[in-house]
Amino acid sequence: MNSTYFTRRTIRKYAQREIDSDLLERLLTAGTRSSTTGNMQVYSIIVTRDQEMKKQLAPAHFNQPMVTEAPVVLTFCADFNRFNLWCRQRDAEPGYDNFLSFMTAATDALIAAQTICNAAEEEGLGICYLGTATYSADRIIQVLELPRGVVPVATVTIGWPAQVPEQPDRLPLDAVVHYEKYHDFAPDMIDSLYREKEARADSLQFIAENGKKTLAQVFTDVRYKKADNEYFSVKFLEAVRGQGFSV
Amino acid sequence: MNSTYFTRRTIRKYAQREIDSDLLERLLTAGTRSSTTGNMQVYSIIVTRDQEMKKQLAPAHFNQPMVTEAPVVLTFCADFNRFNLWCRQRDAEPGYDNFLSFMTAATDALIAAQTICNAAEEEGLGICYLGTATYSADRIIQVLELPRGVVPVATVTIGWPAQVPEQPDRLPLDAVVHYEKYHDFAPDMIDSLYREKEARADSLQFIAENGKKTLAQVFTDVRYKKADNEYFSVKFLEAVRGQGFSV
Repeated sequence: MNSTYFTRRTIRKYAQREIDSDLLERLLTAGTRSSTTGNMQVYSIIVTRDQEMKKQLAPAHFNQPMVTEAPVVLTFCADFNRFNLWCRQRDAEPGYDNFLSFMTAATDALIAAQTICNAAEEEGLGICYLGTATYSADRIIQVLELPRGVVPVATVTIGWPAQVPEQPDRLPLDAVVHYEKYHDFAPDMIDSLYREKEARADSLQFIAENGKKTLAQVFTDVRYKKADNEYFSVKFLEAVRGQGFSV
Repeated sequence: MNSTYFTRRTIRKYAQREIDSDLLERLLTAGTRSSTTGNMQVYSIIVTRDQEMKKQLAPAHFNQPMVTEAPVVLTFCADFNRFNLWCRQRDAEPGYDNFLSFMTAATDALIAAQTICNAAEEEGLGICYLGTATYSADRIIQVLELPRGVVPVATVTIGWPAQVPEQPDRLPLDAVVHYEKYHDFAPDMIDSLYREKEARADSLQFIAENGKKTLAQVFTDVRYKKADNEYFSVKFLEAVRGQGFSV
């Protein structure tokens, strides 16, 4: 397999260079060849290249500069709208306004998203996922004029790398992979899996900068706080329900 | 980019040939290099190679033969368990028992899953996603002994292709891709996007075999029925809540 899988890193700084329309179309085509539930293709991809549209999307992504600086922003949506329209036009009554169907459509969208990311990286492009797509689903729905049945689940910025940052760390494979059954983690196993991460210079810097005692506290108290998660949970659930999926 | 993206098809029949452990580990490593929210890696991959375990998993997947015939079955899980254990061991109070965190973890899991699928296909392996992972989350949780905080979101069977079926159709790119804003579909656009699909010999056969009038009715009345979707929605929501995510 190509080496990009192992050498990749998220790219947040892009060169001032467009992505050729042919290349973009090949990437999108690769995405649509990926697995999709029952070949229903219940997802959509909104391509943002217009600078004015990027500016409108930016606040939804907390004004992270990638949104206005990347030549292409892709918003991946769970989408039963087109499929439902087809059903109704063909004397068939769709029953896809539920949580399972939302998850099915979100899965289709994320599978296509990741194929496009893998293919883009193989071409030398850099990508960045923005978790804010779910946080600000309401605003994205408004800006991109997403109809009922369509919910954004991931945003990816794509462009030619302007700089190649150091590759971030990952936990040992044992932290993620379990053979045959889930082997839950005893305290010494947790210590061992996180030892290297906790000893990194950048980890120690995060702790110091944020006035915390442990790296875990940087996550729970600063980066991904309970109150924020709960606030955005309610907002995202409202968006999912508002677009017609009962949860 | 490599041609596999465009020539791939789902493989459901596998040769009686193992996947070498080194190759499997490279695939898993490629998966863990993919994007992950805040580098938290809040997912896990359960590898099933043992025949007895495959038999136990099979009913969860409606006894589809791929589960017992593929050399490797991978179950991808949204997983905050390991991260929560780490937090608690480091004097940090995790706040990840909510819908947003579940979606974050499910996204991490699906991104890793699709990278592994792309890398596997590049190596000549064939893959098949089983949507049943969400339908039967309760049974999978039991068989794989998934602790609180861990929910299966996708199962993939992987093996060497025993046969290469015809590549399935896809809708024209315009059905999935929207530029700048979502362009909703007028009735004649729906007709045009689905014309080729509806005219296919296999589509006409599906309609005839199922005694239906339209292809859409095969989906709504036979393959993905409202009553089934609603039943499995309730079951899956119960599993998500049962594993500690409030929705």
